[in-house]
Amino acid sequence: MRVMMDAKALNAFMRDEFPQVAAQFNVERVAPMEADVRLLVDEQHLRPGGTVSGPSMFALADLAMYVVTLAMIGPVALAVTTNCSIDFMRKPEAGRDLIGRARLHKLGKSLAVGDVLITNDGSDALLARASLTYSIPPRR
Amino acid sequence: MRVMMDAKALNAFMRDEFPQVAAQFNVERVAPMEADVRLLVDEQHLRPGGTVSGPSMFALADLAMYVVTLAMIGPVALAVTTNCSIDFMRKPEAGRDLIGRARLHKLGKSLAVGDVLITNDGSDALLARASLTYSIPPRR
Amino acid sequence: MRVMMDAKALNAFMRDEFPQVAAQFNVERVAPMEADVRLLVDEQHLRPGGTVSGPSMFALADLAMYVVTLAMIGPVALAVTTNCSIDFMRKPEAGRDLIGRARLHKLGKSLAVGDVLITNDGSDALLARASLTYSIPPRR
Amino acid sequence: MRVMMDAKALNAFMRDEFPQVAAQFNVERVAPMEADVRLLVDEQHLRPGGTVSGPSMFALADLAMYVVTLAMIGPVALAVTTNCSIDFMRKPEAGRDLIGRARLHKLGKSLAVGDVLITNDGSDALLARASLTYSIPPRR
Repeated sequence: MRVMMDAKALNAFMRDEFPQVAAQFNVERVAPMEADVRLLVDEQHLRPGGTVSGPSMFALADLAMYVVTLAMIGPVALAVTTNCSIDFMRKPEAGRDLIGRARLHKLGKSLAVGDVLITNDGSDALLARASLTYSIPPRR
Repeated sequence: MRVMMDAKALNAFMRDEFPQVAAQFNVERVAPMEADVRLLVDEQHLRPGGTVSGPSMFALADLAMYVVTLAMIGPVALAVTTNCSIDFMRKPEAGRDLIGRARLHKLGKSLAVGDVLITNDGSDALLARASLTYSIPPRR
Repeated sequence: MRVMMDAKALNAFMRDEFPQVAAQFNVERVAPMEADVRLLVDEQHLRPGGTVSGPSMFALADLAMYVVTLAMIGPVALAVTTNCSIDFMRKPEAGRDLIGRARLHKLGKSLAVGDVLITNDGSDALLARASLTYSIPPRR
Repeated sequence: MRVMMDAKALNAFMRDEFPQVAAQFNVERVAPMEADVRLLVDEQHLRPGGTVSGPSMFALADLAMYVVTLAMIGPVALAVTTNCSIDFMRKPEAGRDLIGRARLHKLGKSLAVGDVLITNDGSDALLARASLTYSIPPRR
């Protein structure tokens, strides 16, 4: 399958459509059915002790899945998450960005299903793993 | 089972331990194995069109489960989410607070399992439903 | 919403369409957006020690969700499970039937979302809780 | 990490502890934190049309996760599933065995977390993907 939007196009789309969100994230890499997204960790993502909060990791998983879906189907602002199951396995290190690696397992006409693996930047130890289902609106 | 912390005690605990988070939430009601938590919706929770974002609903589910667990076991800052499965069903209405109603199904020595139902304040229509597992650290 | 198939009609439909499965289950009660289904526990469902196996509880959850969906939309043999998240909380008692209580939270045109609570017959203690999403084929 | 039980030892353990179950499955391959398990598909696993049923795929995911956990910690008959989230993506082909490829993401003292990818034997197309959490009893 062919990639419809590359990292640059995806970052531009995010800035236009979700400016509030886009400042926290950067699309790093896009390949067929795959995308890596960085969470630029700052104060708003932290819990006491300096670890990144669960909701911030959920937000990264959700965005990475959205990004990989857009990469394959093109800009559809209305795709929405219908389900996410997330396992939190290890505490993130303080003061390090997070990387969410999204992989699509199925890209159907109305549903996309994929996984996101979350690690600290530069580490292989899995912090969290999420499975997500996205509902894709009928094409115009 | 007896409630160990009431709504007032829980709100005070949240302000002390998680000041950044506490300003966004209010514990409204506590009963044995149950708690209602309000998300005070403002700009930071919104997506274009005025609906509350998925990560904000996740944050409410996560906090409501934490609150009902604390209500039953007392102040244990270190309880952590190990798994959450969340279904998003309807779009929240613009400009209305959200209520997360948490119910514990099991409160074991090391694991708590519960559900959170999310609605708009004053409505019965279910916006999202989450199941969460919390890991409870060994008591001192 | 009106019930389209009652317990008797559902049991007959199951016997016609899924004879292998129908012998293990009985639809006990149907109400708008709700259904109770019994797993008639026998040897094939047991693990050493006499407890009902996890896959048997999954099968009950899956069937109860299918039954409540059919109850509301009428006989559609092709509805399929797309996702199930199930928490196992307590061991079933030996030699007792299981009851799965299904409740639909959302019945859309293409997706149904619901929960199933599993208990031993005659007990309130929750053994397992499942959330399921069903994909509904386009109506003819 | 070192493998404590190889495929042969695991198949023997299954036959001794779960004879009813063992006849349906075969452990094919074990590596550190990984195991492949075959579901020997027969009549009992089928739905009308010849596809393998959802509960049979759940049973395969559950067993493959159990097998990979035992492979790493040694024979502990009492490890139990606490949560499974499974996405069903494609219909299995009629009359073909299924392979469940389990991978452990975390093996802690009390919890193991992993994924299982299910395909038809000899195919790469993902039929289902499951995430499971196992509770490990305290060692003697």
